[in-house]
Amino acid sequence: MPSPGHARWRLDIAYDGSGFHGWARQPGVRTVESVITDALTTITAATTRVDVTCAGRTDAGVHARGQVAHVDLPDGEGARSEQTLGEPTLLRRLQGVLPDDVAVTAATRVSADFDARFSAVWRRYAYRIADSYAARDPLRRTDVLEHPRSLDLEAMNVAAGSLLGEHDFAAFCRARVGGTTIRRILDCAWSRDGAGRAVLDIRADAFCHSMVRSVVGALIAVGDGRREPDWVGEILDRGERDPGVRVMPAHGLTLEEVGYPPPQEWAARQEVTRVLRGESAEDDPALTGNDRSR
Amino acid sequence: MPSPGHARWRLDIAYDGSGFHGWARQPGVRTVESVITDALTTITAATTRVDVTCAGRTDAGVHARGQVAHVDLPDGEGARSEQTLGEPTLLRRLQGVLPDDVAVTAATRVSADFDARFSAVWRRYAYRIADSYAARDPLRRTDVLEHPRSLDLEAMNVAAGSLLGEHDFAAFCRARVGGTTIRRILDCAWSRDGAGRAVLDIRADAFCHSMVRSVVGALIAVGDGRREPDWVGEILDRGERDPGVRVMPAHGLTLEEVGYPPPQEWAARQEVTRVLRGESAEDDPALTGNDRSR
Repeated sequence: MPSPGHARWRLDIAYDGSGFHGWARQPGVRTVESVITDALTTITAATTRVDVTCAGRTDAGVHARGQVAHVDLPDGEGARSEQTLGEPTLLRRLQGVLPDDVAVTAATRVSADFDARFSAVWRRYAYRIADSYAARDPLRRTDVLEHPRSLDLEAMNVAAGSLLGEHDFAAFCRARVGGTTIRRILDCAWSRDGAGRAVLDIRADAFCHSMVRSVVGALIAVGDGRREPDWVGEILDRGERDPGVRVMPAHGLTLEEVGYPPPQEWAARQEVTRVLRGESAEDDPALTGNDRSR
Repeated sequence: MPSPGHARWRLDIAYDGSGFHGWARQPGVRTVESVITDALTTITAATTRVDVTCAGRTDAGVHARGQVAHVDLPDGEGARSEQTLGEPTLLRRLQGVLPDDVAVTAATRVSADFDARFSAVWRRYAYRIADSYAARDPLRRTDVLEHPRSLDLEAMNVAAGSLLGEHDFAAFCRARVGGTTIRRILDCAWSRDGAGRAVLDIRADAFCHSMVRSVVGALIAVGDGRREPDWVGEILDRGERDPGVRVMPAHGLTLEEVGYPPPQEWAARQEVTRVLRGESAEDDPALTGNDRSR
């Protein structure tokens, strides 16, 4: 709950992950959380560090167009302007202090029921691959992986189908202490975008650490013809990491969107999520160690 | 005409213009032409420099997704492999030596009638602007201009309409010695892309130096409400550069596509273009001076 004299804000955030050691604050490295926390602390003239909670703690090098965070900012007499902090003011001040690889694209006052992480019902990521000479675009080399062979999207989509629904994704998650690796995948399909790139659109209630990049690694083995589509479902069923599954590079991955229920369900959803996955998040760096580079 | 033992190739080229001082080779600076010439010279083991002719000599900082060039490469006994140089081989070798901000997306053997510059019938450019917080995307900051106010595309399109057709664009061109500033604009319209960015799609038989960026500068004055739509047509009619027209930054501009007639018309089109605009191209650095940075 926000402290007295504070109001809760939802921030929509986009970033080029190339220059960040992921979202989560860690000593001695540049992270998105640190940069945003510092910007908010500066513009609100807060005397203590402003805590920022996000929906998806992206790994080093992973990008975002639709990251969502919440933050409690001093309001009324607590704000520098001694006036109620408005959305245009907050956005303008943030743009003035944020570096050009992070943008806050929207700022919305929300009720204290909103929790960017625990109120969320799904996260949607995209993984982009240029698998032909014609699809190569140096302007997109920051967020598109180049792959030397043409991928068979039809075979990849057969394999992707076996991941849909609720499963224990231990085979595609980094080992961790505590918590569950059970997740529900709502969408998982490859298509070609207008420029001929292969794009995986994957949506789930939540993802564990490195899960999307492991799933992509398994599907690419199918798309390259090195494995049959059935192989992906077999790995899932075995529940153990398979040495044939490469964890794909971070730079092809972008957090595109986070889904929330209507405001009257924010509080209830928080409770459900906390029970399902435990108060400590699945991808808390304290649980997974400091090496978040892959 | 290609020398004996040489074959003509069409190369389709994409680049991030950020790291280049434009297309055209100039002493002491990194240009796209130099990088491609060096790559071709290396992979064909040519003893003299390979000359590359492009459709649109982009200025410093301007990008391309659909640049087209032609080049005459040693064939048969002249080629390193002592075999006929095939398209996959050429593409693979080029990719092996080109830096990651340039890509050759296609290589096609063409008849000697094809001239990338003089056979072209139109060039299409896009200018992209993020004019709202919501449209800001750090992953696209290399090729999208950020503009602090929301643009009125409807007013801009009224103004853009006055530029359509054949006119003397002296008011939007840098002064140059010789040649004509008469051009025919085939398309000139703003729209919103899927991410909410304002995109100018502009197509003409050819453009003179800095023409698109001057046109965008004039249209933005209208989109901001500082000028009435009629003002753009008035500038065109006066035929003199207007101090109210800003030459917009290069990084929002991308050469998207070049149009060619069917092969049987390549030779005739070359002749027409040479007569229309003179053997020396409209944007030859030798005629416009070395400062191509704006």
